[in-house]
Order: sequence, then C-alpha cells, then structure tokens
Amino acid sequence: MSEKKRILLLGATGSIGRQTLDVLRRHPDTFELAGISAGHNEDALQEIAQEFPEIQAASVESTDGRPWQTDLITGADHVARLMDRVEYDLLVNAVVGFAGLAPTLKALESGHDVALANKESLVAGGPLVKKTLAETGRRLYPIDSEHSAIWQCIQGSREKDVNRLIITASGGSFRDRSRESLKDATPAEALKHPNWAMGKRITIDSATMVNKGFEVIEAHYLFDVPFERIETVLHPQSIVHSMVEFKDGAVMAQLGSADMRLPIQYALMMPDRPSLEEDNRLDMTRTQSLEFREMDMERFPILKTAYETGKAGGSAGAVFNGADEEAVALFLEGKLPFLGIEDAIRYALQVVPFVQDPDYEALRDCDRLAREAVRYGVSHGFQVE
Amino acid sequence: MSEKKRILLLGATGSIGRQTLDVLRRHPDTFELAGISAGHNEDALQEIAQEFPEIQAASVESTDGRPWQTDLITGADHVARLMDRVEYDLLVNAVVGFAGLAPTLKALESGHDVALANKESLVAGGPLVKKTLAETGRRLYPIDSEHSAIWQCIQGSREKDVNRLIITASGGSFRDRSRESLKDATPAEALKHPNWAMGKRITIDSATMVNKGFEVIEAHYLFDVPFERIETVLHPQSIVHSMVEFKDGAVMAQLGSADMRLPIQYALMMPDRPSLEEDNRLDMTRTQSLEFREMDMERFPILKTAYETGKAGGSAGAVFNGADEEAVALFLEGKLPFLGIEDAIRYALQVVPFVQDPDYEALRDCDRLAREAVRYGVSHGFQVE
Repeated sequence: MSEKKRILLLGATGSIGRQTLDVLRRHPDTFELAGISAGHNEDALQEIAQEFPEIQAASVESTDGRPWQTDLITGADHVARLMDRVEYDLLVNAVVGFAGLAPTLKALESGHDVALANKESLVAGGPLVKKTLAETGRRLYPIDSEHSAIWQCIQGSREKDVNRLIITASGGSFRDRSRESLKDATPAEALKHPNWAMGKRITIDSATMVNKGFEVIEAHYLFDVPFERIETVLHPQSIVHSMVEFKDGAVMAQLGSADMRLPIQYALMMPDRPSLEEDNRLDMTRTQSLEFREMDMERFPILKTAYETGKAGGSAGAVFNGADEEAVALFLEGKLPFLGIEDAIRYALQVVPFVQDPDYEALRDCDRLAREAVRYGVSHGFQVE
Repeated sequence: MSEKKRILLLGATGSIGRQTLDVLRRHPDTFELAGISAGHNEDALQEIAQEFPEIQAASVESTDGRPWQTDLITGADHVARLMDRVEYDLLVNAVVGFAGLAPTLKALESGHDVALANKESLVAGGPLVKKTLAETGRRLYPIDSEHSAIWQCIQGSREKDVNRLIITASGGSFRDRSRESLKDATPAEALKHPNWAMGKRITIDSATMVNKGFEVIEAHYLFDVPFERIETVLHPQSIVHSMVEFKDGAVMAQLGSADMRLPIQYALMMPDRPSLEEDNRLDMTRTQSLEFREMDMERFPILKTAYETGKAGGSAGAVFNGADEEAVALFLEGKLPFLGIEDAIRYALQVVPFVQDPDYEALRDCDRLAREAVRYGVSHGFQVE
C-alpha cells in the first residue's frame, strides 16, 4: 500500500469543509482524514467522524457530553490541542474569521504546508505569515476560486515574467445599483448574491467590494506581487476566475463553473486534475458572452482603502478585517446602514494604533480594538475628534 | 560568453520570417542567426544578411548574380543544401506551403528541434512527421497563435488530465454572412479579414474555415489528442487564442493581441516571457466583451470534411491541403466561385487514391495529384463518374 496523505481539516462542518470532504471521498486511496474540528456543530462533526473511522481525533469548542468513538478534544484551545495530538501531512484551514490565523501559524511552525481557505490568515496576518513562511520554508496552497485561478495561470511560467495579476469581481448583489441607491439597502437585498451561494459575511463583503479588497491583499502575500501590479476588473458572469498578464503581453485565464471543489481538489492534488463530474460544468464550445467592465473606484471606494491598507502592512490588515467583521454583523442586525460598513472600517483604521511589525498577540489586540472601535462608533458616530 | 542558440530560419523574408527576426533582434545575447532562406526575394534576403553578419550561409531559389558577402546557395534544392551546410540548434520553419514538409523532416532526422510555422508539415505530412518524431525523439514547438495558446495552457498540467482542446475561430471575412449569400462572393471581399493581416491564402482559408480545419489536424499531431476531443468555437474578437479544458472542469485560456511575435518568442524562449513592447497590448482591466458562438457545421461544412480527413490519416491530409491550395489560387484568379473551393477539395479527396502509410514521395505525389484533380475538375466539373 502506498503512503496516503494525511489531512487535518479545520472547519470541517462549514461549506468549504464539507466540500473538502467530498474531494477526500472521491480519492480514498490518496488521502486519509487524520483529524477534524468544528466551532460548535457537534452533530455534524460526529457524523463525519462516523463516516471516516481513520480519524485520530476530533475537536469542538463545547460538547453536550455525548459518547464519541473517536478521541474528542474540547475547550477554547481545542484547535491548538488537536493540532498537537494529530499526525498529519497537510492542514486544510477552513476556519472562518480571525480564529484561523493561529492554526496557520502553528502548522507552518511545526513544519506543515497549509491549504488555505481562511482569508484572515493573510488579510489580518499577512506580514507575520510571510515572515513565518520565510523562516520555515513551508508553503501555502490557495483554496479560493480567484487565487486558485492565479496559481493555475502561473504554472509553467516564471515569477519574474509576471506583469500583473488581474482579479475578477462579480460585483456582488449591488453591482447594477448606483451608490446613491445603496443608502437604505437592506440585509435581505445584500444577501442575494447573483452568482455564488456563500456564507452571510462573504456575501455582504462581496456587495461592499471589501471581499475583493481582501483578495488583493491575499494575492499580494500568496504570489509576492506588489500592490501596484495587482488589478481588479468587474466580470458579472464569474466564469473567468482570475487572470495573469505576463511581460510578453500574454494573458492566461482560468475559467470554470462555481464549483468550489475544483480549487479545493487542485490545492490538494495539483498538478493532477482528476474528473469532478460537475452538474453545471462550464462548456466553452457553447454560445455565451463574457463581459468585463473597468473597476470603478468611485463606486467602490472601500477597494481603494483596501489597497492603502495592504500597502501600509503591519497591523492595518488586522484592523481592516476586524472592523469589517464587526460592521457586517451590526449591518445584519439592522444597527448600521449598508454604507456605514465603509465608515466603520475607515474609522477603525484611524483610531486603532498602528503597529509596524506585529506579533500574533499584537494582531489579536488590533482585531479586538477594531471591533470595539466599530461598536463605539455605532453609538457615538464615526467622527474622529 | 555564454553559448548562443543558433537559429536557422527558413522563409526569412515572409511575414513570420520577418517577425522572427524582430524577436532575434531583441535578444542578441541569446540568439545567433545561423542561416536564412527565401523562395525568390533576393533583395530582402540580402538586406537580412547584411544586418546579421554572423550568418553562415543564405539560400534562394535563383539569384540575379549579384555579389554576396555571405555564402549563397541557389537552385531547386537550395533549402536542403543550406540545411546541410549550416550548423544550427533550432530550425524555424516559416516556409509557406507543401515545400515546408521536407525541411521539417530533414531537421528532425538530423537531430534538430523545429519551431514550426509551416502548417503543411502537419496537415499534409502529419502521420509521417509523427513517426519521425517518435523515431528521433526530437520536438516541435508551435508558432501559430492557436497552437501556441494551447501549448501555454497545458504548461504545468499533465497530458492525461486534458479533456478537450478548444480552438477559437474568428469566423473570417464572411462570419456574418449566410451561406446562401456566398455564392458570388468575390476575392476582394474574401480578402478583408476582420482581425488579422495575413497572407492571401490563409485569409481565404479563414473565410472558408479550411484554416480552422487545418488547425484541428495540426493540434491532433502537436498535442496527441484524438479528433473527438478537439473542438472549435467561434470567437469574433480573436482575443482568446484558444483554450484547454481539463478533466476537473477547469478551462485554461490564453488571451492576447494579434501580435505574432508573442507565439514566435514563446516558441524560441519558453518558459521565459520577456517584454515585447506592443503597440496594441491587450488590457483585460478595461471594459470589453468576449463573445463565443457554437460552431455551425452546416454553415461551415468543410470543417466536417477536415475532421474526416484528419481521422482518415494516411495521405488524406496531403490531398486536402494540395486541393485547397490549388482551389484558392483558382478562386483568386476568378476561375472558381467561392463555394467551389469546397467542391474542389471534396472532389480531390474522392478521386486521388488513398495511401495508408505514405512516405515523403507518396505524399508529394498525392499533393500533385490533388492539384491536377482540381484543375481538371474546374474545366470538367466536380462530379465523380
């Protein structure tokens, strides 16, 4: 029997986690599920543990005390303890939010590569993760349709010949609405993403274009390309997942359906590309039209803020992310208007002290301070005295 | 000084030849022009010899007797003798027509790789070239926007994971005209290609869709993909130069301007992609629309004939090519109606005897017989008795 690749999957019960399990199910001779974690959904986690008996241990923040056949770890530090307990070859980090940064750092530091679906690892922790990658020599594999597309486009070419990364943006729920009309946009309207079925926060982040800003920052750290050479373009059909322009003028593009199993499988198996048997497989021999519209920074000013945040480096990304997460939650609760999300982010970036070379604790503090600043600003106004 | 790559350039005074010289000019430390040939244009050939004093020898079919500083070879067999005389590392074969097949075979047999712009090497000589590649272990590098695109798209992936090649077709001069309206299409109309400035024959071949048929056959031999998995799609903008669909559902596409220096440079320098300073560089961050229309085999029935020709193998490609070349010449002389080109090709495919495993002489005979059949048919009608 050949050696299987042992996967430790964090965030196993979420959307990316479940689609990762789909990929693993398709290749039982290639992969072994070594461990799983979830935030709270013990039911779903136990179901997974029963399906994959090779699991060494599972972890969840709190248990209802039910019996587990598998070793179960609980408590606030359950993920860190799971990572210490399980023997694995690759971490698939599908944790949602700032909580995903610590596992990324811990995996790299213990000599593991990371397939990364957790945006915050690079948005909030980019400079620190970059330093850790350099120190450990480990690698990140993007799980995200845009970054996977870029990664696929640069295969077979050299870094030095990359001219620009061009990240496509669907434009989100409000792509055809004027800025003026967004003043009283409701959560229900913002949650209707035209192309992708995703979690609430990322759907709101698509409507505000914050998500595209995050992706610009992630692309900078994943591919080591300066912000001046990372562009975005509106592409309503979301068929071209992103592009790379080379110095010779050639543009390579990756196209596909909205099936997230493709980037997940690519992250786990590249250069292999086994069949996925999709229901809505893209067929480029059929009649269709792909539109591209120049990105309008006046219409989506927060994207400009994202570039500035990325260029500032240090703790700015942690503040940007923390403020956005809090602001989106407040918007969904009806406590902040849609355009107030932008005000909240800008406010937090102004009032939270900037740290040039933050360690993990400093980033965690900035994340917390950004959330506090947003909550304070909601009741007291986003004016800087 | 590092070793330079010595280039033997056949067809130096044509469009591809001159653009190849542009690429060599940009990289004098990388390349050395070892030899050049032209069919008849001695003036232009001598200019090139004066610009590149490192040339070991030049060749042209007939000379006006002028003095040459460079060794000059003339006569019907000038190309073969040039290839024997010159020491080179890579043959760039930009010969036009059936005459390009012999140099491709000769280069491979003498242990040289070939950067191939000559379509007929694979359209007419595919089975023989394939056998020669297998025997010699040498390689072909495509110089052609579509095949270069495919080549760029498969970099970093594995052959076994390719599902389909999708070749884009601009549709040529008559893409928006009905078949009915083509009955009295004139050479002047057919020569107005909407996207590319090319030679006369290839422009007519684009209008008839014969050229796309040729490219399907070339793609089969270049990438070893069965005809069932080579598709074409109409793409009026000619921005996507071709695509590769993989088993996982991902489609990789190469996009670019109409600058042929890009595929030439890629064939000579890949994986490097140095800057080309194009005037009309493609900018995918700008607003634009890329349309794709399903290929209509009723509208372009000759494409179906091309697939059948490719699948038949043997000498069928040589007949298809020879008949087309003759028919296009007769059309340009006003001796054959536009749709008569298709009749002429089908007639030749019926009347010229099929050879299963042709050697070079058999292919040359088939080429000649196809031309004779077309000329006979023009005066006697394309009916098979």
